[in-house]
Amino acid sequence: MSQENEHVHCLIIGSGPAGYTAAIYAARADLKPVMYTGIVPGGQLTQTTDVENFPGYPDGIMGPEMMEDFRRQAERFGTEIRFGYVTSVDFSSLPHRVVVDEHKTITADTVIVATGASAKWLGLESEQKYNGFGVSACAVCDGFFFKGEEVAIVGAGDTAAEEATYLAKLCRKVHMLVRKGEFRASKAMVNRVLNTPNIEIHYHTETREIMGNGQNVTGVRVLNNSTGEESTIPVTGFFVAIGHKPNTDIFVNWLDMDETGYLITKPGTTQTNIDGVFACGDAQDKIFRQAVTAAGTGCMAALEAERYLAAKEYEPQKEVQL
Amino acid sequence: MSQENEHVHCLIIGSGPAGYTAAIYAARADLKPVMYTGIVPGGQLTQTTDVENFPGYPDGIMGPEMMEDFRRQAERFGTEIRFGYVTSVDFSSLPHRVVVDEHKTITADTVIVATGASAKWLGLESEQKYNGFGVSACAVCDGFFFKGEEVAIVGAGDTAAEEATYLAKLCRKVHMLVRKGEFRASKAMVNRVLNTPNIEIHYHTETREIMGNGQNVTGVRVLNNSTGEESTIPVTGFFVAIGHKPNTDIFVNWLDMDETGYLITKPGTTQTNIDGVFACGDAQDKIFRQAVTAAGTGCMAALEAERYLAAKEYEPQKEVQL
Repeated sequence: MSQENEHVHCLIIGSGPAGYTAAIYAARADLKPVMYTGIVPGGQLTQTTDVENFPGYPDGIMGPEMMEDFRRQAERFGTEIRFGYVTSVDFSSLPHRVVVDEHKTITADTVIVATGASAKWLGLESEQKYNGFGVSACAVCDGFFFKGEEVAIVGAGDTAAEEATYLAKLCRKVHMLVRKGEFRASKAMVNRVLNTPNIEIHYHTETREIMGNGQNVTGVRVLNNSTGEESTIPVTGFFVAIGHKPNTDIFVNWLDMDETGYLITKPGTTQTNIDGVFACGDAQDKIFRQAVTAAGTGCMAALEAERYLAAKEYEPQKEVQL
Repeated sequence: MSQENEHVHCLIIGSGPAGYTAAIYAARADLKPVMYTGIVPGGQLTQTTDVENFPGYPDGIMGPEMMEDFRRQAERFGTEIRFGYVTSVDFSSLPHRVVVDEHKTITADTVIVATGASAKWLGLESEQKYNGFGVSACAVCDGFFFKGEEVAIVGAGDTAAEEATYLAKLCRKVHMLVRKGEFRASKAMVNRVLNTPNIEIHYHTETREIMGNGQNVTGVRVLNNSTGEESTIPVTGFFVAIGHKPNTDIFVNWLDMDETGYLITKPGTTQTNIDGVFACGDAQDKIFRQAVTAAGTGCMAALEAERYLAAKEYEPQKEVQL
């Protein structure tokens, strides 16, 4: 196997809103960024349909189309976008070393981590089939589409509870499907759910299938794992809120992360614990997880990379001069 | 004078990228937001021309047009947008009290501060005339438009020094105009400027006039205030970097701010020192100041306002229940 080597100023890992925005800013600052897209070019938004909450699209846009706009904009200013997957990194010395597709080694003065997160899914075929057509993993993103309708949400943690009450404000009725006989969520959050009149909690309930008419979701078939009974709940929206996993496995032992794997940055910045490595987007955000918040941190990462490089460039000369 | 009174769930003060993005999210969460635009509806971007770095506009867009998109999007989801200026606030008790146009009092469960900042200008007529046509107060935003060209930048502080080196990477030559015989910037930043070969520093230099051909900037006429000599420097870009002022005067004595007036938020959030008051955009950002970073924090503010209201709504019942 050939051992290729290449040096870049600014390597961007990931191609969602954070990665592309970092690319736009890095390219305009003449950092000549090179981006590796990862296995899902365009990121999570390429797996959605309508996006109505990204500012600048007053009539809404389809997720994949929006990411195509972002890509074009990043390329227009000279970002080199490559299909490829970063398989390992070595941040033990400068420049940073990054291995792509297990064989190509790149050294980089700065690395922008924009690898995103992945929603956890139940793993049902029907869930995949109706993803974006009634099935969603983001209540804040998609709740509005179900205003006045009846929906279901799966999950038992704090996020699920929060999203259920969010949906309850918009929807006529929210069915909350909890697999066990109790919640994992905090007492306060559980209470919030219990006190919301239009949330009906179904304990001991597992999802067997998302029903649909070929176009949209029409209901959900559930199993009561305590009684063994199956039943159907008529809903037009089905929300999965069983957690997210940040795509940060390759950074274990290099970058500081919390127990779930979310990268930890210095407050108010995108700086990680390693000089010259910046983290943006959902890989470091378990709170907001919106395209526009990801884009904002992508911009920050590029500007911080630029400033880091500018400071570094003149440091040695400063020593001589002063 | 009539004393009108009105209560709202979510009051948004300011109508730049942060305010409109907060409005999009707040409206979609059914908070029925009411926005007061302030004296510059659309904010700082309405005073620019081309915007190329906001993700989602691959071919660029004019600043005022972009803000029109944002406005339409916020209105589409039910934001009530009103022309008016908040003249005072009283955050001493709940609900918060806000006075608009000196006579109308509004009470609000949550207040989102998105009042932005204003660039300081030299105050020359020609500077105003060519603003957006060669004159800019943001090197990171507009430097790219002058790639390979000769530009001037006015200022002597850290930001001016940083922007000068940013421009030096893109432009053939950067003339740095410093009014006194020395910089205000830190030693490290001054040194960075001194060590950049294509920055020429003009000390004791004041700008008399921006020259132009009616369309674009062609040069700058300067006065050496030490010798009294006037001369002309041929440039196509003229950058003003003498500082920004956050529009936060009405919040003095209520919200925590730094010595310049930038609002202080809890790290990683938009929460101010007052419960239910959230700050986003340039009013709380002296580091990045980009439209997309402002939009990101606007989204955060709306989601935090929604969560704050949701938590509050169920608190009393929780007491009874547990």
